[in-house]
Amino acid sequence: MTVGIIGTGLIGGSIAIGLRESGFADSFLGIDTCEKNTAKAVELGLVDEAVVLDEMLERCQIIVVATPVDALVKLLPSILNNIGEGQTVLDVGSTKLPILQAIAGHPKRHRFVATHPMAGTEYSGPTAAIPKLFDGKCCVFCEAEKSAPDAVELALKLYQSLGMRITQLNGEEHDLHTAYVSHISHIASFALALTVLEKEQEEGRIFELASGGFSSTVRLAKSSPETWIPIFRQNRDNVLDVLDEFINTVSRFRTLLIKKDFDTFHELMGKANDIQRIIG
Amino acid sequence: MTVGIIGTGLIGGSIAIGLRESGFADSFLGIDTCEKNTAKAVELGLVDEAVVLDEMLERCQIIVVATPVDALVKLLPSILNNIGEGQTVLDVGSTKLPILQAIAGHPKRHRFVATHPMAGTEYSGPTAAIPKLFDGKCCVFCEAEKSAPDAVELALKLYQSLGMRITQLNGEEHDLHTAYVSHISHIASFALALTVLEKEQEEGRIFELASGGFSSTVRLAKSSPETWIPIFRQNRDNVLDVLDEFINTVSRFRTLLIKKDFDTFHELMGKANDIQRIIG
Repeated sequence: MTVGIIGTGLIGGSIAIGLRESGFADSFLGIDTCEKNTAKAVELGLVDEAVVLDEMLERCQIIVVATPVDALVKLLPSILNNIGEGQTVLDVGSTKLPILQAIAGHPKRHRFVATHPMAGTEYSGPTAAIPKLFDGKCCVFCEAEKSAPDAVELALKLYQSLGMRITQLNGEEHDLHTAYVSHISHIASFALALTVLEKEQEEGRIFELASGGFSSTVRLAKSSPETWIPIFRQNRDNVLDVLDEFINTVSRFRTLLIKKDFDTFHELMGKANDIQRIIG
Repeated sequence: MTVGIIGTGLIGGSIAIGLRESGFADSFLGIDTCEKNTAKAVELGLVDEAVVLDEMLERCQIIVVATPVDALVKLLPSILNNIGEGQTVLDVGSTKLPILQAIAGHPKRHRFVATHPMAGTEYSGPTAAIPKLFDGKCCVFCEAEKSAPDAVELALKLYQSLGMRITQLNGEEHDLHTAYVSHISHIASFALALTVLEKEQEEGRIFELASGGFSSTVRLAKSSPETWIPIFRQNRDNVLDVLDEFINTVSRFRTLLIKKDFDTFHELMGKANDIQRIIG
């Protein structure tokens, strides 16, 4: 099997590594808008060859589009225009409604499977690609009923060969839930890093005193704006909704500090401790 | 050397493990206000014996007080009342001004060394104690000039035997900087966990979809209120100050989303990326 990877960065590259390791496919063709990235992906052995789109569509049974979600919305219709009934196209985007709407009436809609493998790191580009990134993590399939059964089956096999659990959501549900468990943590982390950088005049102190807890909380603030701005743009309404709630909660803690109401503060912290019960 | 550990939890227990491994001391006596914890600490081999305070003060050359910071302020003066010139007392608290003020005029002030080994995990109690917790981390010494040189030297040896880097700050500086790089990340994490728990009606979805990024950002929300409420109480003014700034920053992101000003959003994310340059 020959797999085409469009966007040979953290996600696309890690998928290629995983599929080669699992034996799902033995040949990988790559495309990246950044030529340096394509060359690096070949050098690192993530993909075997850098090709142009026409050649990829000619040679690949399955094409994984792992670009930022704004590029995906522009690119996917033209990919679907040019593929045949034996080919399957997957995306891996962190937002789903816009892409589902963009290709809703496309005559080749059924060759596309909308998926979101929920895994990543704070790094980006081909050098960030790592083995086992997806192992044990969850992959969301969206509106799989609009995809051809053979395409869904192939996508399932692909993600299962990466060790992923599969779940199904519709586009609205997906975008809502990812705003809660993924997008808001990125904004919280970015805001925390920015606050500390602006407030702490002595940068050396951050470096000197930062412990594991701080590093863990600001880890996502290292993430690439090129990936995340398009996500926040596409999922703006859901993100705003949970962001408002987050501001309310932080402000509640602030008010309790001002009033020195440490009993209620304790109670809220106890409730937050519940997260341990859920994510272990 | 016999070391007394008051508060045989995450920090006190991990210090005992480290000092035993490094050969700094070979005998450890423990006290915990919670009898179950003391028994567990003996069972786990963190300390050799559970004792009462009088016996500890009689038998130990060095006493490490690793209680929550509110208990510390109450306990330390009476410990100092009862020790001799050959004994040294350390604390490990995450706030420093209140304790320094509490014992400022004490006739045995010079036998106390105020220290803060900046390391931890989100877990607590004797079972949370782990080897190498402090290895490569930073330990802050506060107002060491008010401690006897031999006491400071012993404390230095103790922390160096745990693999720690040492830095010096006065009490004000310490409490300000820890508000920035430690205390605020805990509040951000608690607020994020609480927001998601309150907003996400389907708890199962959090469990199902949570990836490494989310877990990393809410990790500190598992921390014990018993440890953290006294810290927020004692360092309230500094925490409020940085909390206000954090709320401003999150609100800035919110306004940019509302206005769809993704250029400025991108710029702020780029600035936050700078945290990578500092903490790597």
